[in-house]
Amino acid sequence: MYYRMIGAALIALAAALLTGPRLIRYLKKLHFGQTIYELGPSHQQKQGTPVMGGLMMAAGILLGSLICHPAEWDGIWDYILPLLAVSFLSMAVGFADDYIKAVKKRHDGLSPWQKIAGQVIVSLGFSLYCYFSPRIGSAIRIPFTGSEWDLGFFYIPVMTLLVIFIVNSSNLQDGLDGLLGTVTAISSSAWAVICMIITVTSALTGKNAAGGAATAGVFAMSMAGACIGFLRFNRYPAKTFMGDTGSMLLGGATAAIALLLRQPMLLLLIFFTPIMSSVSVIMQRYYYKLTHGKRIFLMSPIHHHFEKKGYTETQIVSMYAGITMLLCLIAVISVCASF
Amino acid sequence: MYYRMIGAALIALAAALLTGPRLIRYLKKLHFGQTIYELGPSHQQKQGTPVMGGLMMAAGILLGSLICHPAEWDGIWDYILPLLAVSFLSMAVGFADDYIKAVKKRHDGLSPWQKIAGQVIVSLGFSLYCYFSPRIGSAIRIPFTGSEWDLGFFYIPVMTLLVIFIVNSSNLQDGLDGLLGTVTAISSSAWAVICMIITVTSALTGKNAAGGAATAGVFAMSMAGACIGFLRFNRYPAKTFMGDTGSMLLGGATAAIALLLRQPMLLLLIFFTPIMSSVSVIMQRYYYKLTHGKRIFLMSPIHHHFEKKGYTETQIVSMYAGITMLLCLIAVISVCASF
Repeated sequence: MYYRMIGAALIALAAALLTGPRLIRYLKKLHFGQTIYELGPSHQQKQGTPVMGGLMMAAGILLGSLICHPAEWDGIWDYILPLLAVSFLSMAVGFADDYIKAVKKRHDGLSPWQKIAGQVIVSLGFSLYCYFSPRIGSAIRIPFTGSEWDLGFFYIPVMTLLVIFIVNSSNLQDGLDGLLGTVTAISSSAWAVICMIITVTSALTGKNAAGGAATAGVFAMSMAGACIGFLRFNRYPAKTFMGDTGSMLLGGATAAIALLLRQPMLLLLIFFTPIMSSVSVIMQRYYYKLTHGKRIFLMSPIHHHFEKKGYTETQIVSMYAGITMLLCLIAVISVCASF
Repeated sequence: MYYRMIGAALIALAAALLTGPRLIRYLKKLHFGQTIYELGPSHQQKQGTPVMGGLMMAAGILLGSLICHPAEWDGIWDYILPLLAVSFLSMAVGFADDYIKAVKKRHDGLSPWQKIAGQVIVSLGFSLYCYFSPRIGSAIRIPFTGSEWDLGFFYIPVMTLLVIFIVNSSNLQDGLDGLLGTVTAISSSAWAVICMIITVTSALTGKNAAGGAATAGVFAMSMAGACIGFLRFNRYPAKTFMGDTGSMLLGGATAAIALLLRQPMLLLLIFFTPIMSSVSVIMQRYYYKLTHGKRIFLMSPIHHHFEKKGYTETQIVSMYAGITMLLCLIAVISVCASF
């Protein structure tokens, strides 16, 4: 299984690097350039950068995780298909949005209700799957302890909302060159390490309780490889943006791993900065309404606040990467401490 | 022990962040600015950036690893003192070099022979310590397998050379804003994760064979925290450089962890990019001599080659970070696969 994890990362990296230049050329020919509007401070020079670069990560994740899937450990049906389904159906919603914006050159894309409807279908379906799966169920693990918390029937609405929240957080964080790609490269690596630890310890103790950790590990490694490959084209100055296509793919994939491993609470650590992006938007909106026009942040999501404060894009990416790395280490420690 | 690892990282982070601004102001007052000469392409605008910023990492590593040292697991003498000794004595050589350059405003600092003599004393002493320590000895682990390779008496010269090589590799890689800091933040995190895995597995199997992994883990976490804190001031555009002070500290600390865990072969993966920097310098020099004046790279170390090729500093840092991250994941996998 360990060699498969390495294979998955390398295949995904190669797939992203090889499809990259072609994809960018193709998207440019189709004039799928981003129409930059009022979303970010002084990003006018980014007009025309092709969006939907996320498709190269999709290619990487798909190839890496299918070719290296550890079929002798976990069957096809229980883990890898749900993972891929959530990721790629989330991506489909983002893709529809990007496609409408790019082709019709309108800013609005899908209507908010269409987006939410699509996301509810995906996340409700996945929560139901986890709830009824004999290998997952309604109990989630509590970090740092060996104990679990059985949510019972509430598992379904809570997890449905959580998946939607994570997908949209991921989407909101995607606003600076290399930002979400870097954060997700680190967070996927953390998931991969957690899967390794679960696999090693369950092999040592003889309990065959790894429960999908092998599959999730291969999947997370292919995510990490795909993100690192994508950053080759997305780091500042970006040659392509991942678009809603990419950000919803990464958000869906991250949420799916967390639920399969029964570790959704770890998202608070591992996916802290995207969650912070969401929370900053919500705070800004409510504060604005409550005070009839005052703002907490110069601009939300909070990475634009830092931009307005005078930080450069690469400085903000570096800061987010540092925070994510530390919190991911704490997440890995929390798993070790639970044995 | 796990909570101590978190504590070490947070204390080191806080120490670096808090000492940073004061240290930079103090160094500026002393006119300890870097005198930029022919080392990098078009770095003239960096003239005067204070060097020896590495001292804030030293504060972080010292405080983090001493306050959180897991004395109930490993004694003081066996592991933490050798780790600190190698790190800080390596740093002392770099500090002497920086100090002479800064005070005397000469480019040459210590003579090459003085530097090498200092490094030989430190690394020979440490290799002898490891060789004679009943808990370490002359056998090193072979990655991906459970087996070991007993170098016998050859352990001493091989490891002496290795430590010198690693310290100088680290020193050579330190040439772009945030480069070595980012690479070492990732590599220290990898060491910390490896230490966690060794500790968890040896606790589960009942063999109390963690052999210093708890101490090395706390030490590695304080390195990671210190590097992340330092990057706050060293990321592009850098407010301070770590100097030989910092790069030799990080190189010494990395080599010391590798030898204590009996995993020096993993340096090839975890510390690949600094090693690549060294190798590129050696290749360039020999090729130049052999061909009487031709060059393989536009400039060595190889990160300056990429700069001359038109990549920006932040692009090169991002590339090195991606490579380091993938190789570190493979290193962690190699440890899991050896059980």
